Amino acid sequence: MERERKFLVTQIPSRLSRYPHALIEQGYLALDNGQTGHYEVRLRRKDGKFTLTVKKKKATPIRLETEIPLSPASAAKLWPLTQGRRVAKTRYDIPYQGHTIELDVYRGKTRGLVTAEVEFSSEAAMRKFKPPDWMKKEITGRSKYANARLANFGWKRGSQSRR
Amino acid sequence: MERERKFLVTQIPSRLSRYPHALIEQGYLALDNGQTGHYEVRLRRKDGKFTLTVKKKKATPIRLETEIPLSPASAAKLWPLTQGRRVAKTRYDIPYQGHTIELDVYRGKTRGLVTAEVEFSSEAAMRKFKPPDWMKKEITGRSKYANARLANFGWKRGSQSRR
Repeated sequence: MERERKFLVTQIPSRLSRYPHALIEQGYLALDNGQTGHYEVRLRRKDGKFTLTVKKKKATPIRLETEIPLSPASAAKLWPLTQGRRVAKTRYDIPYQGHTIELDVYRGKTRGLVTAEVEFSSEAAMRKFKPPDWMKKEITGRSKYANARLANFGWKRGSQSRR
Repeated sequence: MERERKFLVTQIPSRLSRYPHALIEQGYLALDNGQTGHYEVRLRRKDGKFTLTVKKKKATPIRLETEIPLSPASAAKLWPLTQGRRVAKTRYDIPYQGHTIELDVYRGKTRGLVTAEVEFSSEAAMRKFKPPDWMKKEITGRSKYANARLANFGWKRGSQSRR
């Protein structure tokens, strides 16, 4: 069970680079909305390390997710197969009232999008959370902002937001 | 470019166990028939070794396929996510007129199905090939017999063959 809330960020906090941050590159080997559930197979590079993540979602709460490390050689072989299905972002870890806000500043075809996510250890903590001013609109669970979707379709296309 | 022909086997050659053979287990992490092409992410165990294969097919001849080795620990983590999408077969390598016939005797939900496949080094060799008597009906390119499909739907279901 993941307990997290996600927000759109319209005003980026000042002096962001003082927080720990890393470039994250993700490419999708497969996205499947088949009869047997929704699948994702994701290749991720962060801090020079590569991981392969497989997510399997049924319609209902059941959600399986597994992650394995990949050697640079294996990752280099798989990466070309993610062409056209990639997303890149710089992630900043911002401490806030005992939580860590993960602020993602997107690049490439999703440039301009900035989101913030917080994970909670309990339902109570999740409810009690008061976001700072710059975390504007809540987008928890909105599939439009799922990274797999962004990698496939970008941000603006098919959306109702204006430039 | 793969040059191969595939056949249904109705009568299994005698004394099959004298040929080199191995149990092959395959599970599919993802099958995708999305807008951007057809994807497969396959986990395979053969001879105690694990490989992850990613296939990307466009409608036209372009076909990308990459394979990486997996550690037993990584394979063990990913295997549960292939539940309901598995296929198992014993593969026999039968020498025949300078070629190797790969005879696959399926198990589990595809039990009863036996296929034979031959790969060729040239167009000419492919055309010249005369299959032995027991390789009956040619099924080259028939998606019904693609392993990914068999893993998902089995053999009999939706087919016109009888028990």
